[in-house]
Amino acid sequence: MKHADKENITSRTAILTIHFPDRKGIVSAVTRFLFENDGNILYLDQHVDNTEKVFFMRIEWDLEGFRLPEEEISDHFNVIALNFNMNWRMFFSWETPKMAIFVSKLSHCLDDILARYNSGEWNVHIPVIISNHNELKSTAEKFNINFYCFPKDKENKKLQEKAEIGILVKSGIDFIVLARYMQILSSEFVKRYENRIINIHHSFLPAFPGAKPYHSAYERGVKVIGATSHYVTEELDAGPIIEQDVSKITHRDSVQDMIRKGRDMEKILLSRAIHAHLNRKIMVYKNKTIVFS
Amino acid sequence: MKHADKENITSRTAILTIHFPDRKGIVSAVTRFLFENDGNILYLDQHVDNTEKVFFMRIEWDLEGFRLPEEEISDHFNVIALNFNMNWRMFFSWETPKMAIFVSKLSHCLDDILARYNSGEWNVHIPVIISNHNELKSTAEKFNINFYCFPKDKENKKLQEKAEIGILVKSGIDFIVLARYMQILSSEFVKRYENRIINIHHSFLPAFPGAKPYHSAYERGVKVIGATSHYVTEELDAGPIIEQDVSKITHRDSVQDMIRKGRDMEKILLSRAIHAHLNRKIMVYKNKTIVFS
Amino acid sequence: MKHADKENITSRTAILTIHFPDRKGIVSAVTRFLFENDGNILYLDQHVDNTEKVFFMRIEWDLEGFRLPEEEISDHFNVIALNFNMNWRMFFSWETPKMAIFVSKLSHCLDDILARYNSGEWNVHIPVIISNHNELKSTAEKFNINFYCFPKDKENKKLQEKAEIGILVKSGIDFIVLARYMQILSSEFVKRYENRIINIHHSFLPAFPGAKPYHSAYERGVKVIGATSHYVTEELDAGPIIEQDVSKITHRDSVQDMIRKGRDMEKILLSRAIHAHLNRKIMVYKNKTIVFS
Amino acid sequence: MKHADKENITSRTAILTIHFPDRKGIVSAVTRFLFENDGNILYLDQHVDNTEKVFFMRIEWDLEGFRLPEEEISDHFNVIALNFNMNWRMFFSWETPKMAIFVSKLSHCLDDILARYNSGEWNVHIPVIISNHNELKSTAEKFNINFYCFPKDKENKKLQEKAEIGILVKSGIDFIVLARYMQILSSEFVKRYENRIINIHHSFLPAFPGAKPYHSAYERGVKVIGATSHYVTEELDAGPIIEQDVSKITHRDSVQDMIRKGRDMEKILLSRAIHAHLNRKIMVYKNKTIVFS
Repeated sequence: MKHADKENITSRTAILTIHFPDRKGIVSAVTRFLFENDGNILYLDQHVDNTEKVFFMRIEWDLEGFRLPEEEISDHFNVIALNFNMNWRMFFSWETPKMAIFVSKLSHCLDDILARYNSGEWNVHIPVIISNHNELKSTAEKFNINFYCFPKDKENKKLQEKAEIGILVKSGIDFIVLARYMQILSSEFVKRYENRIINIHHSFLPAFPGAKPYHSAYERGVKVIGATSHYVTEELDAGPIIEQDVSKITHRDSVQDMIRKGRDMEKILLSRAIHAHLNRKIMVYKNKTIVFS
Repeated sequence: MKHADKENITSRTAILTIHFPDRKGIVSAVTRFLFENDGNILYLDQHVDNTEKVFFMRIEWDLEGFRLPEEEISDHFNVIALNFNMNWRMFFSWETPKMAIFVSKLSHCLDDILARYNSGEWNVHIPVIISNHNELKSTAEKFNINFYCFPKDKENKKLQEKAEIGILVKSGIDFIVLARYMQILSSEFVKRYENRIINIHHSFLPAFPGAKPYHSAYERGVKVIGATSHYVTEELDAGPIIEQDVSKITHRDSVQDMIRKGRDMEKILLSRAIHAHLNRKIMVYKNKTIVFS
Repeated sequence: MKHADKENITSRTAILTIHFPDRKGIVSAVTRFLFENDGNILYLDQHVDNTEKVFFMRIEWDLEGFRLPEEEISDHFNVIALNFNMNWRMFFSWETPKMAIFVSKLSHCLDDILARYNSGEWNVHIPVIISNHNELKSTAEKFNINFYCFPKDKENKKLQEKAEIGILVKSGIDFIVLARYMQILSSEFVKRYENRIINIHHSFLPAFPGAKPYHSAYERGVKVIGATSHYVTEELDAGPIIEQDVSKITHRDSVQDMIRKGRDMEKILLSRAIHAHLNRKIMVYKNKTIVFS
Repeated sequence: MKHADKENITSRTAILTIHFPDRKGIVSAVTRFLFENDGNILYLDQHVDNTEKVFFMRIEWDLEGFRLPEEEISDHFNVIALNFNMNWRMFFSWETPKMAIFVSKLSHCLDDILARYNSGEWNVHIPVIISNHNELKSTAEKFNINFYCFPKDKENKKLQEKAEIGILVKSGIDFIVLARYMQILSSEFVKRYENRIINIHHSFLPAFPGAKPYHSAYERGVKVIGATSHYVTEELDAGPIIEQDVSKITHRDSVQDMIRKGRDMEKILLSRAIHAHLNRKIMVYKNKTIVFS
């Protein structure tokens, strides 16, 4: 199995994401930091939120020829950061995040993720798949990924989550993908992985939250159906939205047709969100996302 | 001013829209009626709603060479219709519907409608524009359309509606378009023009009904904004949906950007709904629409 | 492995596709045929091509309660067909078509097809995958599908095709899917499977036919990229188009980004074309398609 | 008539667009220039073209509280620019560009532009409309804009262009919009207004350049139609693309339907291109555009 494609790993790069409340001089300070160390900027994205008065920035630069040794970059940057009260994170292209997948019975999102994983499209490692059912065990086995089944009911939910977290921790999981996982996670679970659980909901939120959105869409007679990938928060289907898309439908589409057409959107949108997350393109601020292109 | 373009009026055609609860033999009976009278079918659309067990049909045929005199077609068809308990309507291409427009202060939908009207794109007559403000009076005058201003508040609403209905009746209005009209019509008004009042709402319903949907969309951090054209019913923003469309946005879009991008969708979707209504392409059944292509 | 999902096979249905040059009375004759035999119409789609003066029809009806025995339906219908000089085909829902897949090295389309196959989304059987490379052999093995490798060069192309056809014939293949197969098939091959070879091209044809369309798109500076599924004809990338879609891009998208975004469109559009083909929703006439919804 | 809306003119801002071949230190120098003069950045967009090794930047800042007097900003910035061999332009929000419109007989694009103009949506002045026909004279008169008619044939084309240029120069025209103008401009004309003539072509270029693209699209049987706004260059329909969009069609759409649906796309895309041009969001480099969001 190949775990990263040429897009991601041929060059050694550093990625810096920053947001800060007051901006006078900071952009200048950050770019000067790179300039003075001969940093070759590959991508530079930023966003000024004029309502919140916050500045967001993502810089990626080539480490080839960069004057600072890789292990010292963070420390050097921290001096500037402290000056300006920045909120920042640094990533390096050779770090491979570990992702866990939660599924129930529906296979389309899992299949799409594993096909990309297997082809080396993403720089990610997937050590574990967790489910409340056994149906997709054989899929996990096809790709040699550990599969754990934790059936849940009201009684055992807390205990099962404990066991799940045990596995996540032991596997060194960085973030979690709910690939049509049909269980609501507890507040404790969600808090532990804040902005690190990606869900796909099968409607254009905030319309049709909760169960059976395609049935509700059919009932209402809408002419578009949609899907939404978002980070999970304690409130159901109310977390920061990452991506949304819609598909036009007509009076000829039955609920079954909507479900079929919806599946294609769901898997693509979920995988796009994973791609953006893996490439450190998403910043979360006050229940909204900045998703750099 | 030209009131119909070549698409609609060069040929004399008849349009029949039907829906009926039980279908055995009816399609056959209808097509035989045309066949036996040498009707040349130009468009034949239908839809089987397998959930409701209802059959919908729209047939348009050329009257050139049709054996029945135009004024007798309805009577002849009625014989078949009575046999099968059909719900049907017959239209002729030379009938020009009369449409009233209601506006407030925003001009973009009105401008789009009047530009199409002036260019002869539609087979329609617009004798009257009604508003609760005076801002768009000069636009009406540019196109020589009567403009009436009925300012509304809680006190005078009933009385003003009465005056409006007086004008609508006197002008022989067939249907009404609310082109970003910022007033809620009374139940009595709505009932009088059932399935004959087209509204444009500036969100993808059922998300963000009511006032200020772009502000709500911004607040929620959605990644698509939308618009919905629909028939007005007593319940606000809950009537049968005719068309919907969305536009992708990003974190860079302010509320002002959304409003600007939204305007383009709103005017196009409203005009498309008018086009479909004028061409008798919309059938309403149980708060949903069938919109033939 | 499950080979058909509930959508397709719970009910026993018959599907009739017809096109005919002159229409007076035919629609009536066809629907009367169903009516007199108590046929319960599930879907009825048709299209009048007023330019070509051809009528296209697709009817699907429930065989439950249909008066004619299944094995006699075709013979009975043929009597009507001969009367009107119809061009017709009859299909039954329990017939499972056999599909072969041709691939080269890129896996995304194959992965998408096999995931749907494995989940039972389609009523299809896939006995064989053919490639000019060995890279995707392990994928075929994961799904227990026979994999044959026929490397091709100018010298051996004719011979290799002969061998391929031998396998297709032996396996009883009904239609072929080129899932990013990077070889041009000979005229003889194409003719043998007329309107039965589905290809995916990675541009919105007729723009950028041939090799490396994303590079050409980048070079030209377009703001949308697209993909096209179509039947293969002797002329390269010029066959009847089944589906097309596009994705917006910006100046920020490199060729690599286009390739990545394009993959998602390609696999979805190819699978949609297969779905339409399997459900007998596509009719081809004079290098164009009618694709019923 | 109002000539600018609140979006554009409530605040006094400066806009700087720059591109430069070598980037080390330049971003830092530019942002420091703003920082040291207390410039409050409102928008900061940039793009690194890693293929061409060119850096593009657009900065907009509030002049309220900026330390340099408005009339001296350019001179001060020029000192930095010379240091780095930048290619730059400076604009101020209170400068109102002058735009000329060229039309033939079709009104939809002109109507859309004038409606926006009349509502004050854009910060622009339109002193003149030029046509090779007289059909749209009355539209120009409705909005009190000077209308000049220069009918063209092979013989008189050069002379007529001379007269047109005379008017453009006399009116102080900054840029030209071809709103479905059905004449090809000479090389001399195009060169004089390089990257300042915006055209709308009714296909997704590079497919279907030249005349009658909807007829060609119908002939080819495509499933999407499109439109393209672009700057005009000497080679027909080959200039830098600004915006493109498509609309899905089916076998049911006649050429007339395509023309009707296409009109909506054409006018919206042309107006979006004008909006981007007016807001200095477009930079042209080697026959491609950077269009900042």
